[in-house]
Amino acid sequence: MSLEPPVIPDDLVLPPGAGGRIVLLVLDGLGGLPDPERGMTALEAARTPHMDELAGRSSLGLHHPVGPGVTPGSGPGHLALFGYDPIRYQVGRGALSALGVGFPLRAGDVAIRLNLAALDDDGRITDRRAGRPTDEEALRVVERLRSGIQLGWPDVEFFLEAEKDHRVVLVFRGAGLGALLRDTDPQTTGVPPLEPAVLPGVEDAASERTVTVLSRFLDRARQILADEPVIRGLLARGYARYEGFPSVKDRFGLRAAAWARYPMYRGVARLVGMEAPVEPASDEEALAAMEAAASDFDFHFLHVKGPDARGEDGDFEGRVAAIEAADAWIPRIMATGPRVLLVTGDHSTPALMKAHSWHSVPVLLHSPFARAGAAVFHETACRSGDLGTLEGRHLMTLALAHAGRLAKYGA
Amino acid sequence: MSLEPPVIPDDLVLPPGAGGRIVLLVLDGLGGLPDPERGMTALEAARTPHMDELAGRSSLGLHHPVGPGVTPGSGPGHLALFGYDPIRYQVGRGALSALGVGFPLRAGDVAIRLNLAALDDDGRITDRRAGRPTDEEALRVVERLRSGIQLGWPDVEFFLEAEKDHRVVLVFRGAGLGALLRDTDPQTTGVPPLEPAVLPGVEDAASERTVTVLSRFLDRARQILADEPVIRGLLARGYARYEGFPSVKDRFGLRAAAWARYPMYRGVARLVGMEAPVEPASDEEALAAMEAAASDFDFHFLHVKGPDARGEDGDFEGRVAAIEAADAWIPRIMATGPRVLLVTGDHSTPALMKAHSWHSVPVLLHSPFARAGAAVFHETACRSGDLGTLEGRHLMTLALAHAGRLAKYGA
Repeated sequence: MSLEPPVIPDDLVLPPGAGGRIVLLVLDGLGGLPDPERGMTALEAARTPHMDELAGRSSLGLHHPVGPGVTPGSGPGHLALFGYDPIRYQVGRGALSALGVGFPLRAGDVAIRLNLAALDDDGRITDRRAGRPTDEEALRVVERLRSGIQLGWPDVEFFLEAEKDHRVVLVFRGAGLGALLRDTDPQTTGVPPLEPAVLPGVEDAASERTVTVLSRFLDRARQILADEPVIRGLLARGYARYEGFPSVKDRFGLRAAAWARYPMYRGVARLVGMEAPVEPASDEEALAAMEAAASDFDFHFLHVKGPDARGEDGDFEGRVAAIEAADAWIPRIMATGPRVLLVTGDHSTPALMKAHSWHSVPVLLHSPFARAGAAVFHETACRSGDLGTLEGRHLMTLALAHAGRLAKYGA
Repeated sequence: MSLEPPVIPDDLVLPPGAGGRIVLLVLDGLGGLPDPERGMTALEAARTPHMDELAGRSSLGLHHPVGPGVTPGSGPGHLALFGYDPIRYQVGRGALSALGVGFPLRAGDVAIRLNLAALDDDGRITDRRAGRPTDEEALRVVERLRSGIQLGWPDVEFFLEAEKDHRVVLVFRGAGLGALLRDTDPQTTGVPPLEPAVLPGVEDAASERTVTVLSRFLDRARQILADEPVIRGLLARGYARYEGFPSVKDRFGLRAAAWARYPMYRGVARLVGMEAPVEPASDEEALAAMEAAASDFDFHFLHVKGPDARGEDGDFEGRVAAIEAADAWIPRIMATGPRVLLVTGDHSTPALMKAHSWHSVPVLLHSPFARAGAAVFHETACRSGDLGTLEGRHLMTLALAHAGRLAKYGA
């Protein structure tokens, strides 16, 4: 087993089967700021009797997902919770999208996020999202491109997958491809898409090769889409070369599963070797699927989007309601018999800021070996918790320890 | 822009002009220990209504400038507050002295702190500080040396600057000079100065070259000073090869200014590319100059020496008074309209110890996006602050985030 210094030394992880089960419940964007009128954060304002009851028998604390002052995207925020240093393990939006639609990326693949776009007869963009086409419409266009495009190099393959609405993922597979390219999306309408090019100031033969491959792909696509009524163009919006991450099985001895309604969170979980056995249509379906498969895995990652989505809307009361809804999950999760339950967020999303923020995130870690916490679970109570303020990537190590999955270090 | 891992990843800093203004108010040596009679620290004992009011609307915490248990000198303490890892970025006392007198050091320069010393007719030291000469007297001697000494190498220059009293800075400029030399100050009287030599156990051709250059310099100086009544010798007390640090402009996109009465603090600020537009004769002059130039810079570093100076004197009540005087600055600073105000110290200086100490230092970070703090600002209140206990170098990242100067990390 290989562990990442300096989190935990090698050879400390016990073999699969040892120790108890872990549930990580991520309330996306959990941390907040006080509402100016109510003087409380959403977590302080929410009625959360189940989490509060658990808080009395749990270790509490605050975590910085990436580091103090750093506002995490969803990828780095979740990687930290999965025990991966998000500075060392970087993941581009293209790779997250590809993994989110279940595409089995291999090391060396270059994944590119594309928008289906509307172009006029002169090739100028009229809508960067092609009027948000239905999934069916997008799939029809994707299938035309799939069957119509021949790149013409024997050693380069492409894969094209519809994500949602106007979003499509393109993957190039072949030796020596780089991803240091600028977007072809000009971020405005009335102009043609930009030509593929490497980033300014970058000299990278591998990325130059990707420019050549992508240029040919886009040429062929333009010919095929010329007779389409609306979707006549493709805009590249984010590139990533997928390097392949060590899995949670190899690093932590965990058979792990992700239960998440939204593809991106299943994607980041797959990135570290978790399974995503279902594509739930709702949070309730996600929870029910996890309940049914509780004993099939050592580690369950359950994702709840609401607190973040309402925070980005600036909807404080919506955040309160989303947190209260998640609180009702606690008895059902505990009924599945985990040894360890970790409740936290991947970052803060204060309604006041309508965006992800850098503020530290409350943590509740329940196990039979937790110290006594507090009578309530929220940002202020967590300040005095026995976990203190720590880096997010250390939470996995703590969960493994509480689950009896880490051996003693040294004699 | 280039940022130092692992504090903040590359390309996160927004361009100059983005975000709000930051004021860093350093109360030198702010942290303390309880006075045995009063049972309170100086910050606890001081009447600080303005800081206390701000504390209710600020993030609080404690920081270790270098690391737990490490007593920082002023250089490392301030470098940490400026966002520089003080272990990675080391600065010798010689370089600080040179920068303090405004000498424009270049990368590769070797700066040496010298004492003007009194020697008897046999060349034995009678006073290691030459009776603390007046600045005028020191300058007269420095000018004799400047005009009288020819080193004789075409590729090595020297610069000599009077600092204060008996303190003088010598800079050698030339290729391939090192700074791993032992002091020539024997730290006692009745013996001659030591000969220049590399440190025991060190093999370093560059430092050997500096030994040769310094030996010739000191020979010439001895000849010139032979007819002086008192100042007949020079004692080397600290060497530094100045490597050149990346600037706060390059690293953090900040146009920054230092407002400090004492040269050394302007020196350490210049080391990281801050301007020091004035040489204030008092703290009041420093504050007034900052008020006048408030909108000319993105970052203001204001330095108050009193709490440290009184702490080194063992003067507890003097520390209390110095902190109360600084509290009166708060409304004037806030009136300049900063987005972020950071109040902290570069280390602790408990009056009980009459010296710098390793104890953690209280932090107050005020911004529109700060969580609620406490009713008072002092060491004990800061224990329960939402910043927790963190490394000093992370405070800059937090200040940048609160000022809206850092982009999101990852998708």
